[in-house]
Formats: sequence, C-alpha cells, structure tokens
Amino acid sequence: MRSRMPLYRSIAARLRAAIEQGAYVPGQKVSSARKIAQREGVSLTTAVDALRVLESEGLLLARPRSGFFVVDKRAPEPVPSRPSKYPQFVTSAAIARSIFLTRPDIIFPLGAALPDPAWLPLRDLQRALTAAGRRLGPAAQTYSMPPGRADLRRQISARAVNWGATFGPDEVVITSGETQAMRLALKVTCKAGDVVAVESPTYFGALMLLETLGLRALEIPTDPRTGLSIDALERALTTRKIAAVLASPNVQNPLGASMPLNQKKRLVTLLQTHQVPLIEDDVYGDLVSQPGIRAGCKAFDTDGLVLYCSSASKTLAPGWRIGWIAAGRYVDAVLRARLEESLAGSPLIEAALADFLSSGDYERHLRRFQSRVEGGIRAIAARIEDSFPAGTRFSRPANGYLLWVELPKSVDALEVHRQALGVGIGISPGPLFSPQTGFQHHLRLNCANEPSAGLLQAIDRLGAICASLAEAVHR
Amino acid sequence: MRSRMPLYRSIAARLRAAIEQGAYVPGQKVSSARKIAQREGVSLTTAVDALRVLESEGLLLARPRSGFFVVDKRAPEPVPSRPSKYPQFVTSAAIARSIFLTRPDIIFPLGAALPDPAWLPLRDLQRALTAAGRRLGPAAQTYSMPPGRADLRRQISARAVNWGATFGPDEVVITSGETQAMRLALKVTCKAGDVVAVESPTYFGALMLLETLGLRALEIPTDPRTGLSIDALERALTTRKIAAVLASPNVQNPLGASMPLNQKKRLVTLLQTHQVPLIEDDVYGDLVSQPGIRAGCKAFDTDGLVLYCSSASKTLAPGWRIGWIAAGRYVDAVLRARLEESLAGSPLIEAALADFLSSGDYERHLRRFQSRVEGGIRAIAARIEDSFPAGTRFSRPANGYLLWVELPKSVDALEVHRQALGVGIGISPGPLFSPQTGFQHHLRLNCANEPSAGLLQAIDRLGAICASLAEAVHR
Repeated sequence: MRSRMPLYRSIAARLRAAIEQGAYVPGQKVSSARKIAQREGVSLTTAVDALRVLESEGLLLARPRSGFFVVDKRAPEPVPSRPSKYPQFVTSAAIARSIFLTRPDIIFPLGAALPDPAWLPLRDLQRALTAAGRRLGPAAQTYSMPPGRADLRRQISARAVNWGATFGPDEVVITSGETQAMRLALKVTCKAGDVVAVESPTYFGALMLLETLGLRALEIPTDPRTGLSIDALERALTTRKIAAVLASPNVQNPLGASMPLNQKKRLVTLLQTHQVPLIEDDVYGDLVSQPGIRAGCKAFDTDGLVLYCSSASKTLAPGWRIGWIAAGRYVDAVLRARLEESLAGSPLIEAALADFLSSGDYERHLRRFQSRVEGGIRAIAARIEDSFPAGTRFSRPANGYLLWVELPKSVDALEVHRQALGVGIGISPGPLFSPQTGFQHHLRLNCANEPSAGLLQAIDRLGAICASLAEAVHR
Repeated sequence: MRSRMPLYRSIAARLRAAIEQGAYVPGQKVSSARKIAQREGVSLTTAVDALRVLESEGLLLARPRSGFFVVDKRAPEPVPSRPSKYPQFVTSAAIARSIFLTRPDIIFPLGAALPDPAWLPLRDLQRALTAAGRRLGPAAQTYSMPPGRADLRRQISARAVNWGATFGPDEVVITSGETQAMRLALKVTCKAGDVVAVESPTYFGALMLLETLGLRALEIPTDPRTGLSIDALERALTTRKIAAVLASPNVQNPLGASMPLNQKKRLVTLLQTHQVPLIEDDVYGDLVSQPGIRAGCKAFDTDGLVLYCSSASKTLAPGWRIGWIAAGRYVDAVLRARLEESLAGSPLIEAALADFLSSGDYERHLRRFQSRVEGGIRAIAARIEDSFPAGTRFSRPANGYLLWVELPKSVDALEVHRQALGVGIGISPGPLFSPQTGFQHHLRLNCANEPSAGLLQAIDRLGAICASLAEAVHR
C-alpha cells in the first residue's frame, strides 16, 4: 500500500497539508520527530527527514533542542541582497557617528548588539577580577606586553580545539576588544585603496574600520540563512584584485546567517587557491547551537591564511573590552602592529578571563545564556509578526540574538530611528550596514533583552511607527 | 663695610669657594636657607637667592622639600642635543620592536618607564575595582561609549583646575592608555607625510606612532633642564610647514626636563601665532614637585590649540591601561576617531579610577610615591657616579624617575643593552629615542625601583659593562 514517494516525503506531504489548512497557528510547535515516528510507525531518522523537508521549504523553523515550529507565512524572510558589483569607499560611518555619539536616554536597547547585563554572570565576573588581583599581586599593576598573558592565550587555543581549530597559543595576540583585532588584521593585509570583500549587509564596525583605513568595500551577496555567497565571491576573485575577505561565517551580523560546514570549507579552499587572506569575525561563534556547524573557517586553515578574530564582549563581559586574534602566517606583523598601537594590555583583565575560561564557569553560563537568548528572540519575533505593517519581512536566524527586518520600501529607516529614539527605543537602522546608502528600509534589532511586557510594548510601538511611515507615503 | 656686590652674591661667592675647596663631598647637602640667613644675618629671601645663584651655575641641585645638594662635577650633565635640521621619516621603531617583543627574564627593570608595583597602592586599587563593580551593578558589563563616563571626565577636569587649566569635562575623551590619546591627537591634526616637531631625544612610543602614521619627525634641540628650545622651534616654524608639535613640557621623557612657566607660556603663544596645534604629553605631570612649575601648557591655551594627553599609567595604575585627552577645538574629531578605533571603553575601570581620584586616595599615594621616587633616583645617581666610566655624563632631573646617561662616544648603547640583558638587567638604549640613528652612546634608566643592595649592584655591573666597552676601543 506504499506510494512511490519515499516514505519521508509522504509524511512531509501530510504535514504540509495540515499546516496549509491552518491546523497549526504560526509560531506553534509541531509534533516532535519522536511522536511522528511512533504515530507513523517509522524510524526516528525518517521522521526527522520529513521535518527537514518542510524546514528546507521554509514552512518549519528548527530551534535547537526545542523542536520544529510553524513559520508565519505572513512575514517571509528577507531575500538575499543584490549589492553593487563595484568596490566603493565607505562613507556611511557618519551615520554610525551620529547615532553613537549623540544618544539620549535609551530605555529599550534594541540598537546596540549587547546582551542584557542581567543575563551575564556579574558576580562571578567580579569575583574573577578579585581573585586574579590576589593571584597576580604586584604583577597586576604592570603592563601585559604583546602578545598578552600566556594563560589566556592557552585557554583561547584550547577552546578552539573543541571545534577543530589547531592554532597554538603562540599564534594568538590579545587585543583591546575585537575591534582592535579586526583593525590589526586589516592593517597587516591591506594598504590604502585596496579592496576588501565583505558581506552584504555587513557589520558597521567593520565598515568604520574600512573607512578609517581608506579601504574600499566590495559587497558580496549574502543569504539570510547560509551566509556569504561563495559563487559570487568566486566570480569577484576572478575579475579583480581583492586584498582580503572580511566575513562572519558564524552568526553573521546583522543577518544571523551561519554557513554550513561544507561552505566554510569551500570558502577556505577558494581563498587558498587565490592566496587571499580571510579575516574571520567569530565574535558570536559561541552562540551557535545548531549541531555540527559550530566550527569556524579557522578549522580548515592549513595555510595560515585565516586571521581569526573574537572577543568576550558578546557572550560574557562587554565591560572588560578584551578580544583576540589568531593570525596565522601574519602573527609577527600583528604582534608588531599591536605593540605600536597599544604598547600593552591589562594583566588583571587578561588573568581574570583566563581563570573564568579554565574554570568551566563560562560553559555553565553559556548554557543558561543560550536558552535566554532563544526565549528573547522568539518572543520578539512573534511580536513583530503581530505589530509590524504588511509587507515586512524578517530573518529567522537559528543562532544568535539579532533580527534583520526588511520594512516596506517606502519606510525610511533613519526616520524610524529618529522617532523611536524619541520614545526611548534604540534600534540600528539599515544604512549603518552598507558602505554608502543601502538598506534604507531595513532595521537590525537586538533581542538579547528580557522580553518583559514593557519591551514587547516597545515592539508594538516600533511597529506602529513603521506602519504610520508606510501609510504616510500612500496617502 | 659692604662690598659693591649685592649681598646675596657675596654670600654665594663664599659658598662657592667652600664647595670648590672641597668643604662638601659631592652629593652632600649644604646648609639650609634658614641656617644661612641666621648665620649671615640676612633675610630668608636673600639666602635663597644666594643658593639659587649656585643652582643656576650648576654647582648646587635643588631637591624639593629636601634642600640644596652639591653637584658632583666629575659627571656633568649631558649637553643639549644638536639634531638634524631636516624632517625625517621614522625608522627606529624596529629597535623598539626587537626590544619589547623578545624579552627574556628581566630581574632589574631599569628599562621600561614603569614604577615598581610595590610602590603602588595595590590593595586600594583592587578595593576601588570591587567597589566600582558594586556601585555600577549591571552597568559594569556594558560598553562605556565615547567620550567615556562623566564621573571620570569630571574628576580629570577638576584636578587640572589645580594647576590652572580650565577645560571642562566636555572637552575630555577617555582612551585606552595615553598611547591611544596621542595617536588620536596625531590622527586629527596630521595626514601622512606631514612634519611633526618633537623634542630631541624624544619618547620612543611617540616615534612609533609617527612611523605607523607615516609622519615625519623634525627634532628640535632640547635642554636637559629647561626642555624644548623655543628659539629653535620658532626658527623651524618660520622656515617650513609644521602640522603639529608633540612635546612633554613637564618631566620630558627621557631627559626629565621641565620647562619653566614662562617658557610654557611662550610656547603656547608662539603656536597660537602660527596656528599650529600642540600635542602635550603630560603623563609625568603629577611628578612635578618643584614649586610653581606644575602647570601644563594647557593652562595657557586660550585658543583650543592644545591637545592635552595623560594617563594613570606612570603614577598609579599601569595595569588599568587608561588614559585621556582634553582636545580643545579638536574634541569632536577626537571623539569620532575614538569611536572608530575602539567603539567603547570599560565602565568598570573608568568608574574605579573616578572613585579613586575623588576620594583623596590618589593625593595621599602621590606624596608617598614622590618621596620614594626621589630616594630611588638619588641612590641610583650616586651609584652611577661611582661605577660608570670616566667621560660619562648624566641628567639630574628635578622631577620624575628617569635618568638620561651619555656614555663615552665609543660605547655602543645597543651592545650595552645586549650584554646587560644577558645578566638580567633591562635598560632603554639611546637609539630608541631618535627617529633614525641618533643617541648611539646614550641610555635611559628607570629609577622607580626600590634601591636594594641587588639593584645597586646591578648599576655597578652596568657600569662595568660600559667601562669594558669604552676600554675595548682604546686597546
């Protein structure tokens, strides 16, 4: 009595029909693979395969350790960007400056990509500082000369082994936050006027660095789910000289995209062929909870061409301002650049972080943090569905706490920003994420906030602002 | 029965004769002004005037709150430098890199200009961090966006009022150490290829910045006692385009020179006439104990042309890596550059320093620290007299903890460095302090170390190394 369709496909078809007939409300969890397996009398693998079919069709969204949820078809995901094929000097930093240097009081911090401090282990961090002070004694008040303390560099390289990278502590240089790590990486691989390939949209901090260093940005189309288009990058590499690629293969900012492992591997191989360095921004890497894709590109780097950058700012201790870079074949140049820029670092902060990482406290924190992040983003996504105007699209990232929202074309994101600020709501308007004037009707929202009633009302408010701006044009 | 000579001059003449006849050993304290006044039956002012005459002749050295000491004529002070009249690109940073990035164990840290941590209020600093963590609560783990916390900026501007500067907290930007403050100042006042006037010798950290930014250094002759030659600078300003002047009017590094107030005022006036900005490095300013000369050039800045830079690294907390800049008319540009470079600072460190400064703890520490510094430098200076080869000259700075030693011309300071390192002694060789290849027979010694028997033996050892290198040439 079996159809010719493979078993998992016929199960998927029945589930699809049920969803399309409205058996589930958008956002609702569907039966677990285990339940489907029992009900249909099939193996667990077959049930999972059926769910994956609907996931690949964009009907279901997998949430790690939670199950599969019905995607709301009213608000599809943003389409991959189609940026200019030509490199451009960066001029958008003026927007970043105007936003970050003139901030009134913000009650709802949906702008900056920072976790709610209440979600961080504040007391443990303070204790770690105190203990490090005691342990170091007088050495706490000296300079930590580059490359930085060996205990911290050992912890960083040991943790990377967990996802397959094998750089040793000697390849690591401690920096003042990841911003410095990325700047040093750009300094040692590029000179003024050079072209750097970046994702589109891309993190504004990276764009500010390009502008300051006089580098040109070549935007590469980037998929909201799978990240940087390797095909597009490959075409670009064959048509022009690219000095470096700067990308976030894990939890891209602002899209939240994470590249599948085979894509990461392909990216590294491609760049090895062209002998172009990859500046890998992995600052959200520890938020990857999808199984099997945590590895950074650095894990596939056999040639020393990947400059791996990260920090403690996004998952643990923004207030410590500490980052690092595993610089491959560029380590000596990075070391010199760090000396010239900063002379030295803080031994106290470095030792405290080393202790924290070695104790297992970080892993414990991360598990709890992760589940809060998932709760936060789910609550905010559901509220956007309810309160944003028709025509809104937004990303459903499987990892991280950033949402990328594409508003109806008529809505000016900078005007949304201005009006939101007037009622104490911070957002990051889209033009921040492009070298010149792109993404004018996009927003990035930071969802690492406790989804209190107040916060959810702020989302409503934001939706109302967007709706009124969308309507204003039609009148 | 009075001679025609003014009274103070005849007293000075008698004292001069006594010194020249060997009535005092070099380094010995002469009678106090009070005693001379009683003995000679003159006013205290007249007695002080007599002592000042001998000081100006270089026979006596005034030590604040200690009295006047006989200068050892065997080892005169270095003569003012006579640098090239042409601007030069900096190439000496390679020396700094080779020294700072490959350091074996140093037992006697006479190289880096850092205080013995045992002289710092370690426990109080740690307590301040803990208290700040408690006070800030969740805010400790956010970003401190530029310009940095208002409480710290208020403390910095309030302290500057003590010596006559009137910049408000709004003119201050907090930075990652003074190195960043100076880099931001250079970035906003110069572009690649520009000429920056610097002291000769000058601090190697500043030279590294010039090299990295592609700026040319124009060395201005600098007197070991009175600092930058304003006459020479004035000539340079009339003959070529100078984008900025970078100088340390207080406790110049490495000379220890401090400019008299009228010179500082003249410098500011001169630069106002030419509309050239002054980047004022005042990182040792709080070590000025000579009465009446503490003020920085910033006190005379009516035009917003002085970019005043300092930090907590040299007198309080090197391990905190915190600095600041009061940037005058350049404050907006500096603010933008700080945002682009670092995004943010550490609220915890900023708050802890603000608390420390406001509590009076810093003043208490400074008094004690100052007397240790004076003891340290006196002990080391005396030992140099005894153990360094004939023909050695060295500075007798009235303030600070750095000694500048001019060895016989035949001694190669880089070789002294190598041999000293072999026996665990760090020094800073002279070539570090010139843009290209100057000061090859000079050393800078950091005297902010407890003058233990071991440390004094290290000075003997250093003297023996210098002596053997001086002799080797004559053989």
